Amino acid sequence: MTRTVVSHTDGHVYEFAPEMEPVYTADDGERLTFETIDSLNGAIQTDDDLLEAIPEEVNAATGPVAVEGAEPGDVLRVEIEDVRVNEDRGRVVTAPGFGLLQDREDIDHPATRITEVSDDGESLSFGEQTVPIDPVIGTIGVATADEPVSTLTPHDHGGNLDTTDMTTGTTAYFPVFQEGGLLAMGDSKAAMADGEMCGTGAEIGTDVDVTVSVVSDPPVSLERPLVHTGSAWKTIASAETLESAVAMANEDIIDLLRHEHGYSATDAYLFSSLVGGLEISQVVDPLVTARNAIPDEYLSDPF
Amino acid sequence: MTRTVVSHTDGHVYEFAPEMEPVYTADDGERLTFETIDSLNGAIQTDDDLLEAIPEEVNAATGPVAVEGAEPGDVLRVEIEDVRVNEDRGRVVTAPGFGLLQDREDIDHPATRITEVSDDGESLSFGEQTVPIDPVIGTIGVATADEPVSTLTPHDHGGNLDTTDMTTGTTAYFPVFQEGGLLAMGDSKAAMADGEMCGTGAEIGTDVDVTVSVVSDPPVSLERPLVHTGSAWKTIASAETLESAVAMANEDIIDLLRHEHGYSATDAYLFSSLVGGLEISQVVDPLVTARNAIPDEYLSDPF
Repeated sequence: MTRTVVSHTDGHVYEFAPEMEPVYTADDGERLTFETIDSLNGAIQTDDDLLEAIPEEVNAATGPVAVEGAEPGDVLRVEIEDVRVNEDRGRVVTAPGFGLLQDREDIDHPATRITEVSDDGESLSFGEQTVPIDPVIGTIGVATADEPVSTLTPHDHGGNLDTTDMTTGTTAYFPVFQEGGLLAMGDSKAAMADGEMCGTGAEIGTDVDVTVSVVSDPPVSLERPLVHTGSAWKTIASAETLESAVAMANEDIIDLLRHEHGYSATDAYLFSSLVGGLEISQVVDPLVTARNAIPDEYLSDPF
Repeated sequence: MTRTVVSHTDGHVYEFAPEMEPVYTADDGERLTFETIDSLNGAIQTDDDLLEAIPEEVNAATGPVAVEGAEPGDVLRVEIEDVRVNEDRGRVVTAPGFGLLQDREDIDHPATRITEVSDDGESLSFGEQTVPIDPVIGTIGVATADEPVSTLTPHDHGGNLDTTDMTTGTTAYFPVFQEGGLLAMGDSKAAMADGEMCGTGAEIGTDVDVTVSVVSDPPVSLERPLVHTGSAWKTIASAETLESAVAMANEDIIDLLRHEHGYSATDAYLFSSLVGGLEISQVVDPLVTARNAIPDEYLSDPF
């Protein structure tokens, strides 16, 4: 089966907004490939290329793609079938005023380390260390409800979630705020730690195979992104503090547990304290992102 | 081989302090069993037993046990060989003014759900759901450096870390602040989610088999607890906010990566952003607790 390819040159955005011009309109259930470039627009190619400041145009998100039939209140399902790196190197960098330990004086800001992709495409080099390639789509989301949001920032529409679960074999779900949903993605990493402490993973271009489909009139309404990894359901929330983000992610999991089991809020909350748990996506973007996971044994597909 | 048994009735503490009277002095390398009771001193036995407030005496920690030869600046190694529940029920509870969603009006505070242990001892019941027993030692630590710290609070000495990695098959490491180290533990759960959102897991008594040993003049100094799971090394840090806790855990991992690989602080920080990552222990105690994990491939035993 062929896939429609949507490339960075077809169109890309630096903000998710309520109104965006789709570069393509996909059928409900269509298979697509998104071609993305690295988050820094190719500016960093050697260890000597330094990021003196976060550029205004960062995290180019290829798209947006409208999906036929997606209406506000629906849910957009994005099956992530494959994420392939499409260049021979990634780059992990610091920049002044950015990152978890940005005030530590013995850490250089800026600093760049090029991470070369091995000939077999299976791993990256970091100095003498070898790191398996395990790609992450850093920025993925849909048109926002009200205000434009930079691709540097995550929020209820997705955006710069920097969530390691956005990878091959998982399925992401987004609330549809605008007609067509308007999906865009980019800012991939060849590898990234939960937390993304220095502010980046190994930033790299990727080709992302997805199937997009619409859940019309969903039995559970979705306010924020959700991902199914194949073994767990994870709510994803972004906020100014981790404390707020984990509370929001927990509230979203409580909603799903109530829907599944008919629990009171009290029972869902108590149960959430026994299985799965809270996880960190990233602690470095203008809003930080956390997850609440529940294993498949206790949550079925709500859609 | 026999084990020395140290039971709750032999001695227990409600605070970790610089000066504590050991209930037993173990040889370096001795095998022990700590018998612990549930965190609420047996007060909650049915769903009708409600916790109107967190009691002053909570998280009884069996011990402390001095270890022969442990001197300030050393590291105390605690191999956790087995954690067995020793009663027929756990209890998961909320209490007023406690827990992540303590202000949510449709969640009862207090509330209690008894979680019965199955006849084969393999699982718990939560209503109609079955949850595998996967015990966690909630409170584990050593004598503090300066001030007494309640067993409700985690800090650099350990204490109420509520960390799911404190379980069968892992090895915990604590800084030794006082002669003998003075190890105590309790507050186990039969199951607990990372985060411990409602404020408890399934609180239960346990018998904990450990081997204690001293790392004298360690090649890396330890300021806070560390755990080796068998597949990853995890630094553990507690602070007033998750933001501070993850920064401390990241700084501790940077120290270990520098020791292992001879990295600059910059290289260690960049590398930490590619593999392993940040994790949440608990978000409900007076200080919150987070971890930074690095897989075994990239860190060997520093001791």
